Amino acid sequence: MKRIGIVDTTFARVDMAYYARRALAGAGTGIKVLPATVPGIKDLPVACRRLFLDGADLCLALGMPGKAEYDKTCAHEASLGLIFAAVLEAKPVVECFVFEGEAADDKELETLARRRAEEHALNAYSLLMRPRDLARRAGTGLRQGFADVGAVRPTH
Amino acid sequence: MKRIGIVDTTFARVDMAYYARRALAGAGTGIKVLPATVPGIKDLPVACRRLFLDGADLCLALGMPGKAEYDKTCAHEASLGLIFAAVLEAKPVVECFVFEGEAADDKELETLARRRAEEHALNAYSLLMRPRDLARRAGTGLRQGFADVGAVRPTH
Amino acid sequence: MKRIGIVDTTFARVDMAYYARRALAGAGTGIKVLPATVPGIKDLPVACRRLFLDGADLCLALGMPGKAEYDKTCAHEASLGLIFAAVLEAKPVVECFVFEGEAADDKELETLARRRAEEHALNAYSLLMRPRDLARRAGTGLRQGFADVGAVRPTH
Amino acid sequence: MKRIGIVDTTFARVDMAYYARRALAGAGTGIKVLPATVPGIKDLPVACRRLFLDGADLCLALGMPGKAEYDKTCAHEASLGLIFAAVLEAKPVVECFVFEGEAADDKELETLARRRAEEHALNAYSLLMRPRDLARRAGTGLRQGFADVGAVRPTH
Amino acid sequence: MKRIGIVDTTFARVDMAYYARRALAGAGTGIKVLPATVPGIKDLPVACRRLFLDGADLCLALGMPGKAEYDKTCAHEASLGLIFAAVLEAKPVVECFVFEGEAADDKELETLARRRAEEHALNAYSLLMRPRDLARRAGTGLRQGFADVGAVRPTH
Repeated sequence: MKRIGIVDTTFARVDMAYYARRALAGAGTGIKVLPATVPGIKDLPVACRRLFLDGADLCLALGMPGKAEYDKTCAHEASLGLIFAAVLEAKPVVECFVFEGEAADDKELETLARRRAEEHALNAYSLLMRPRDLARRAGTGLRQGFADVGAVRPTH
Repeated sequence: MKRIGIVDTTFARVDMAYYARRALAGAGTGIKVLPATVPGIKDLPVACRRLFLDGADLCLALGMPGKAEYDKTCAHEASLGLIFAAVLEAKPVVECFVFEGEAADDKELETLARRRAEEHALNAYSLLMRPRDLARRAGTGLRQGFADVGAVRPTH
Repeated sequence: MKRIGIVDTTFARVDMAYYARRALAGAGTGIKVLPATVPGIKDLPVACRRLFLDGADLCLALGMPGKAEYDKTCAHEASLGLIFAAVLEAKPVVECFVFEGEAADDKELETLARRRAEEHALNAYSLLMRPRDLARRAGTGLRQGFADVGAVRPTH
Repeated sequence: MKRIGIVDTTFARVDMAYYARRALAGAGTGIKVLPATVPGIKDLPVACRRLFLDGADLCLALGMPGKAEYDKTCAHEASLGLIFAAVLEAKPVVECFVFEGEAADDKELETLARRRAEEHALNAYSLLMRPRDLARRAGTGLRQGFADVGAVRPTH
Repeated sequence: MKRIGIVDTTFARVDMAYYARRALAGAGTGIKVLPATVPGIKDLPVACRRLFLDGADLCLALGMPGKAEYDKTCAHEASLGLIFAAVLEAKPVVECFVFEGEAADDKELETLARRRAEEHALNAYSLLMRPRDLARRAGTGLRQGFADVGAVRPTH
């Protein structure tokens, strides 16, 4: 039994954790979810570290930075914190951020957030349970939330 | 009994700690405040770490960066330091910054600082005492100091 | 007896440490200064850490970044390093930087550097010896080197 | 027998690890490769740290940031994480990033990614097995993926 | 006998380590050099940490970032890494970077790199062997590679 911490925020405008949990449940068995909710993305790094200390083998950090320039700075700080927490614990943190400005309207935002949360959840699943699935797709231009761009060409 | 460190600055132009303490007192019992005041926002990270070593379970870091471009850099540095201190100690630091440039005049600045300090204080309270309150509001587009933007739509 | 490390640079164009020491001496007794001089501001963080290991209870880091765009980057790196050193040691580092571009001419630069060094030295003194002095001035809009801007209004 | 961790991503559009492994195999014997694949470049730092804990003596981190402005931010965050992981473990991480925008079309991207992966793999080999090869070429203006620019002049 | 680690890169276009070693040899006795060469500036921080673990008392990190905007980002990352390594080990890292764009042509680049390497080598020597030499020149506006700008005025 592997444990995945899933941390989300009250700042986000879509319940990304719902989609992530659903995708994980569909991916296979052998996963237990440790949930946590924090106010905003800057609160994610320490929440991940705490879930690691509670036994998580990997954390999925879900966030939705706003549209303002300052929100980009906050996302940058949060990202550095997530990398720091992951390296410190030597356990993966899968960052899943959706910037409000990436979508043209609310509907598109919901769709993008759902798809990205699902695809990053599957990445988290692969990292923990099926690393060979990732190895097989190395260098193939995968994207999360948008269409994959694909490999430049089949190389060898 | 949980302990919340509240650190503020002499640089800020509003007594944000007053509003934070008042909001905490109104939120419920079982909280003891450990106060500290430092000159500016860059002094907040180490002050938080020191309060953690003195027994704080969470720190609320209150600051008010000025209007100049350089103040944004200082806020960025302070934010990274706060995240670093939180991850290192594995205890939450709730950052509550109000940029002077966010408000049109002094009155608006006072109101914004008061509201944001109160709402972040309540977040701090929830993180420590009622994590389920945060979980229930995950993905609902909450904001601190301004009106909440709300969820994109009720999702499920 | 408390020990304050004072680190300055050969890059600066004003002997800021002289003014800082003089201000400390005037502030009260019970302080011993541990001095160090390094080439530039990026050398300050490790110098502070070394002074902490030598027994300093707080470090005052004095620097004067130049006018070029690159100097701002160096100051940013130095600031992050100072915050890192402070958090790591759980002891305060009071950063006192004067950007050459803040002053119109040499005379103004000297005056600004003197005043800021003095006022940050007094902040350092308060942090170590009279924390209540800082608490009393929380949220009152203090500035170092320029006139204080004051609180938005007497709040309560 | 030395061990080199090679980490690549599913985000990249070229199988850089293939070229890196081939170059390593051609460089000499005495190297064992520990492979890992992660979703994107921000996942590289923790993957390196994990390979170090599994016995790697050096890690080669292969990534291909996209063309958007945000991808530059991600690359910056990943780079800082790689440096942090390397310093923490006191073992080298050779970063090999190819920005999609560096190449005019897919063919050029493939060629650039192949060459840079090969040349960084040889750098990794030299760092571990033949440090004197690097010492001999100090200050000679080597580049990876593009033509070397050479030394300013034979100096002494 | 003090040990100075000198790390340079194959990316640089001038053999800065040659000039640094020569300047150190001319500065006095009692210094042993521990040399290392890495591919690029981002490899410097971990190389310094490794030399510290091998017994270095100080490291001189020599690098020459290119002219492109991206090179500035790399230099920034390398600088942060050097500060991190220095603080972590509590031993000085003297950074000596020459940006290719600082010089108008190859000849000027060679001269600038030589002078800056020599002057930073002397700084390294002073830090280890004659800290009072630095203290005497505190606040006197020294520069490395260009003419000193001097103190604003003799102050006291």
